[in-house]
Amino acid sequence: MNPFSSKPADTVASLGEQKLLARIRRWLGSAAPAAPAGMGDDCAVLPPRRARKGSSMAPASLVTVDPVIYGEHFDDAVAPRDVGRKLMRRNLSDIAAMGGRPVAAVLALALDPRTRLDWLEAFYRGLAADARRFGVPLVGGDLATHRGGLVATLTLLGETTAPGARALTRSGATAGDWIAVTGRLGGSLPSGRHHSFTPRLAEGQWLARRPEVVALMDLSDGLAKDIHSLTPADARPLVFGELLPRHPGVDARGALTDGEDYELLLALRATPAGARKFLVAWRRAFPRLPLTLVGQFAPRAADPAAHGALDLSAYHGFEHFS
Amino acid sequence: MNPFSSKPADTVASLGEQKLLARIRRWLGSAAPAAPAGMGDDCAVLPPRRARKGSSMAPASLVTVDPVIYGEHFDDAVAPRDVGRKLMRRNLSDIAAMGGRPVAAVLALALDPRTRLDWLEAFYRGLAADARRFGVPLVGGDLATHRGGLVATLTLLGETTAPGARALTRSGATAGDWIAVTGRLGGSLPSGRHHSFTPRLAEGQWLARRPEVVALMDLSDGLAKDIHSLTPADARPLVFGELLPRHPGVDARGALTDGEDYELLLALRATPAGARKFLVAWRRAFPRLPLTLVGQFAPRAADPAAHGALDLSAYHGFEHFS
Repeated sequence: MNPFSSKPADTVASLGEQKLLARIRRWLGSAAPAAPAGMGDDCAVLPPRRARKGSSMAPASLVTVDPVIYGEHFDDAVAPRDVGRKLMRRNLSDIAAMGGRPVAAVLALALDPRTRLDWLEAFYRGLAADARRFGVPLVGGDLATHRGGLVATLTLLGETTAPGARALTRSGATAGDWIAVTGRLGGSLPSGRHHSFTPRLAEGQWLARRPEVVALMDLSDGLAKDIHSLTPADARPLVFGELLPRHPGVDARGALTDGEDYELLLALRATPAGARKFLVAWRRAFPRLPLTLVGQFAPRAADPAAHGALDLSAYHGFEHFS
Repeated sequence: MNPFSSKPADTVASLGEQKLLARIRRWLGSAAPAAPAGMGDDCAVLPPRRARKGSSMAPASLVTVDPVIYGEHFDDAVAPRDVGRKLMRRNLSDIAAMGGRPVAAVLALALDPRTRLDWLEAFYRGLAADARRFGVPLVGGDLATHRGGLVATLTLLGETTAPGARALTRSGATAGDWIAVTGRLGGSLPSGRHHSFTPRLAEGQWLARRPEVVALMDLSDGLAKDIHSLTPADARPLVFGELLPRHPGVDARGALTDGEDYELLLALRATPAGARKFLVAWRRAFPRLPLTLVGQFAPRAADPAAHGALDLSAYHGFEHFS
């Protein structure tokens, strides 16, 4: 069977990302466990193996995979060194989003035989520089021919760092929790930050040790879209435009929808006084990176407009397959 | 920089696979440890974490990654269910080649928005059926747009099963060791076996528990090429054409060069009597799958012709990027 069709109704483009993911889950059935042991979070969490009495402090394993694809994630305008860096860092950001640390990486490279050696050298050197910088040995890989394309896929293994092998998933929030974000948002693509951002590894590990933090993810498709992954079914996020920490020259829409921020988004369970204490502790630990409360999860029935919060349905983050 | 060049001398095609791999090692430098902890074997072997006294029996982790690519590994003639199966099985074969067992898999799928939903469903159902059959949960993945292409990359995590976390690498052989192979060789592509072969997991695990077995790999590019990966620098493989176990209708050349056999190739250290005992034990464990001695490693100075062995330099296995 030819995998492609010119009739849109027969293709993945007709479904869009969310419906396609739902189909895939159905097709996989029992072969795909639910998050956090399976699909649906920033990383899969594999519980410690052979856990015995007295060894409950063994770390859980984290696994994530992300590609960079010529024509999609980069083009001729991007330096090949930055392609290698982006590949490493977007995967590191997923490890950070579980509060973990990286352990090892494997690279699968599918490339046209016409790929320039100097392009490839700069790509590998960029990847290697980051591997050393972030302490991630490249332990394996595969090279395959792919006429007409260039796809580099990195799988990153990590482990939890917090006591009790705690991994911070996307699913711990509830109505009443504060919504907070690290750093500043928006303008990642025009500024070039999208391939040289710093994955928030130390920050994620710090957050995983704080009991007030109940859910965590990284921002890749824009806050307006990604916040829904952190929102429980019986709640609604109230996000206040004037609180959004923005990069210079970025408006509220850009901060909500530009995507590729690779900052951390979290849910915080604390009294107002507790939240203040938390922010003070953060500032002591990370004096150069802001952490900003941008809103709160409210019960599902809440009306954002009545609270002066943004109508997030008016903003669309990056949509795949559209 | 545009990654592609129309001047062959500037491209990966000018180097061929072995030289390209050597370059990549140089570019990666200290970021890429040597095998078995790094590149160069069927899987990377990550030693048991947090090993303590008394817990030396914890398994080592195995990691491998392999893709299937439209136009390279499959075309319109291959049923999408078989594409999913082949993706799982070629990775399982790498785990088998270390004597390991699979633990979990993650899938990165790069696909054209015009990809047919029915193609994709059959692909996922094939993958899921094998995931259940071989006990490998699909714990994560990534979906990305790749206009004009279809690349599915599976990363498989496994663990060692033999005492002392023993993983069988490619590097343990020496002159005097026997060369043996499981099953029968050749004709994998025309027969369709290349997408429905059985990865030799139980056999690999059995071999890893036998002290006589000193090196192991799986056959993907043909015995004539792959045997060099098992051959130490000071030795030469003597392979005897009349001993090669062949599929019906396959000649010696086919058995040596067709590739995609996914059988196991091993080095065996034993006296002739010890080798006979080993073969008897094998037959008891795996009565339906032959294990055949096909030759022996000799000192580097040996002349294959003088021993009646094949001149392997006259046979070429599958060459990537040529």
